[in-house]
Amino acid sequence: MVQNDTIIALATPAGVGAISVIRLSGEEAINIASKFFTSARGKRLEAQKSHTIHLGHITENDKVLDQVLVSIFKNPHSYTGENVVEISCHGSSFIQQEIIQLFLQNGCRMADNGEFTMRAFLNGKMDLSQAEAVADVIASNSAASHQMAIQQMRGGISNELEELRGQLLDFAALIELELDFSGEDVEFADRTKFKELVNTISTVLKKLIDSFAFGNAMKNGIPVAIIGEPNVGKSTLLNALLNEEKAIVSDIAGTTRDAIEDELIIDGVAFRFIDTAGIRETDDVVESIGIKKAYEKAENAQLIIFLIDSNKFVQNKKAFITEIETIQERFPQKRVLVIANKIDALENSQKEDIESTVAQILLLSAKQKTGIDRLENELTSLVNTGALSNNETIVTNSRHFEALNLALQSINSVRDGIDANISSDLFAIDIRECLRHLGNITGEYDVDKDILGHIFSNFCIGK
Amino acid sequence: MVQNDTIIALATPAGVGAISVIRLSGEEAINIASKFFTSARGKRLEAQKSHTIHLGHITENDKVLDQVLVSIFKNPHSYTGENVVEISCHGSSFIQQEIIQLFLQNGCRMADNGEFTMRAFLNGKMDLSQAEAVADVIASNSAASHQMAIQQMRGGISNELEELRGQLLDFAALIELELDFSGEDVEFADRTKFKELVNTISTVLKKLIDSFAFGNAMKNGIPVAIIGEPNVGKSTLLNALLNEEKAIVSDIAGTTRDAIEDELIIDGVAFRFIDTAGIRETDDVVESIGIKKAYEKAENAQLIIFLIDSNKFVQNKKAFITEIETIQERFPQKRVLVIANKIDALENSQKEDIESTVAQILLLSAKQKTGIDRLENELTSLVNTGALSNNETIVTNSRHFEALNLALQSINSVRDGIDANISSDLFAIDIRECLRHLGNITGEYDVDKDILGHIFSNFCIGK
Repeated sequence: MVQNDTIIALATPAGVGAISVIRLSGEEAINIASKFFTSARGKRLEAQKSHTIHLGHITENDKVLDQVLVSIFKNPHSYTGENVVEISCHGSSFIQQEIIQLFLQNGCRMADNGEFTMRAFLNGKMDLSQAEAVADVIASNSAASHQMAIQQMRGGISNELEELRGQLLDFAALIELELDFSGEDVEFADRTKFKELVNTISTVLKKLIDSFAFGNAMKNGIPVAIIGEPNVGKSTLLNALLNEEKAIVSDIAGTTRDAIEDELIIDGVAFRFIDTAGIRETDDVVESIGIKKAYEKAENAQLIIFLIDSNKFVQNKKAFITEIETIQERFPQKRVLVIANKIDALENSQKEDIESTVAQILLLSAKQKTGIDRLENELTSLVNTGALSNNETIVTNSRHFEALNLALQSINSVRDGIDANISSDLFAIDIRECLRHLGNITGEYDVDKDILGHIFSNFCIGK
Repeated sequence: MVQNDTIIALATPAGVGAISVIRLSGEEAINIASKFFTSARGKRLEAQKSHTIHLGHITENDKVLDQVLVSIFKNPHSYTGENVVEISCHGSSFIQQEIIQLFLQNGCRMADNGEFTMRAFLNGKMDLSQAEAVADVIASNSAASHQMAIQQMRGGISNELEELRGQLLDFAALIELELDFSGEDVEFADRTKFKELVNTISTVLKKLIDSFAFGNAMKNGIPVAIIGEPNVGKSTLLNALLNEEKAIVSDIAGTTRDAIEDELIIDGVAFRFIDTAGIRETDDVVESIGIKKAYEKAENAQLIIFLIDSNKFVQNKKAFITEIETIQERFPQKRVLVIANKIDALENSQKEDIESTVAQILLLSAKQKTGIDRLENELTSLVNTGALSNNETIVTNSRHFEALNLALQSINSVRDGIDANISSDLFAIDIRECLRHLGNITGEYDVDKDILGHIFSNFCIGK
């Protein structure tokens, strides 16, 4: 499966900058680069040590394409585990293309997306879960998603599972051995210790599986549905949060949703605001079609912000109170944050009245940027970042999540088997299944080419 | 003038890619980087050799920001001549910012535009004309402009002038010596040899000055004015040229012009097409206001394409012939290329008629892409790229052009002085002037801080 041909790609972002880096990897990488490199000191690249840098020119038929620095990394001490050359050239698109074209015509081929990292995996430089984390590291745009990706790249989930999987493998071998002596009623595997291990594995798997809801939300942004009438001040509120300059806005085109979303980063945590704007102005609010749509969207959110116009509230308290209660009853599992906006037009007594009427209501003026700090504190306090600060392993990858669930099913079957005192040949299959699912996470066994292709197709070219 | 504080900048283009490179330069660069770098092999950066690469992590308060490769270059063996560190990190904007912020808070400051290259100049790693060429290398987008910039970066103009300047300096010293012995009527400087040198310098300067018109056109694109009625097929023609896939289009917002221009690269040479579209459909074409405007634009062009509709031509030959003659008479110094478009609708006899009526007319159909090759050949044949293929030094920088002109004036004054046999103290001043102007090109003398600032402000940050 390992290909030894030499691949090439631009490793730095496209466009103009001070420098660009072009990366070659493969058995012939150094030899090919050497043919077109004229060292400033008359050195031959092939004769140089790994991890050294050399100044010179890339020339094509005596024409100088650029003055460059060439870094060489020798098999196996490189990112891919192969011979690797990195050419640091001037950052012009023209030069990038000229150099890449030169090497494409002389024994290199264009790398596929993620092919450098795929080779790193295939050559045993990292396991599959670490390879997957490389793309997450590059894509991460908040402190939280970055920290989880870095931990994953450094082997988070692999470290968590490696020893348990080893122990399970030992027991599996003993139990397979029992099967060979099945006529003789022997027990090589200590059932008590084995059950302990099975329980430990089950606990660890559950913990990892439970971390996924949090990890996924932190990676993709915590979904927050904003329910409120049109003109209640949603855009002004988002802008007010933004203007605190703690946040980055981006428009994420909803893939499974029908709306454009806003993403804000507050205290290193990404929040994805889902616009609903579905509530009509009517006394019979709860029954309206609009709020049903808003409810549907709120289903997908982790937090619900119910934004109301405090001036309208004081005029029609009863309707709003009913509405707030309906929403809270409808989503007993979700935290509903009630925010009264536009308080700048209110008397102090009116504000106090609102606060005494609705528990935990948050008063603010998005326009005048008062109360924004409290909202930020409220939002971040709703996210339990304890797992992050304790450096716990957090699962963020849905492929891992699925494999962990399957492994848990198998290990629970094993436990049930032991408890029921059934014959070991019956749960030996479940042990093998569990080992296989755990192995799939780190790519221990031969991984299906299609799965690899799918995983690395999400990478950029050059990585 | 040399500052030794440590500067930092992103050296690769902004945005997401496989890797990004962050560059530090200054006396403390390696020490500062070392504080936040944890080597995978427990090595201390300060203790490592120049031009070596080290794998490890950048950490801030035990939090891993990224896994990185760190390259170190030790004073004076670096781009800037100072200690330089290049950190190759994952190409996420988040990580770039985190790492740069970390170092900004720990003894580095953000580099100004071109500050790395300015330091390289100030530390004697390259002369000023070479430093200027670095920006040209990055900006070049055609084979021709790239080749000129590379040659310049490798010392083209410096090499051309260095020896002559040295010889002139020797003679200057002898002549200054004569001035010290002015009462004794001695001639240390051999007047015949001196005059030979002055003539040689004059010739070389003239050659370089003459190359500027070509160099400037090749660097910025050869301006081609297209004159023709609306709907004569200008856009179709440009697209047809583009579709040959030899070209890149870009919209260059005219800085001193009022139009958006199209740039095409044909055979490695950039052509800048200036849209005029000023000819009205009238028998009294020459007198119309439209064509006057077109003429004004054509003044700024090096080539003029007069694009006519061949179907209209065959109907009203006389008017078109008059028009063609008027244009050729108006621009006796410029090559006027007459192109008859839309020949797809013509009979063969009509085509022959056109060709026999107007000398050197080019028949084509932009729509059907016939005759495009001939137009391309015609365009590139009008550019004498002989100087390029002979690797002659071509001046592309207007600062150099001005200095060369001033130097030529001075050296011609010296020659006139020798011819008139005037006292050497009179032309000694001119010799010093000439030396000063030549020295300004390469930055031999202390260069004015404002001039340096102006030169390097055109660079990107990180270079």
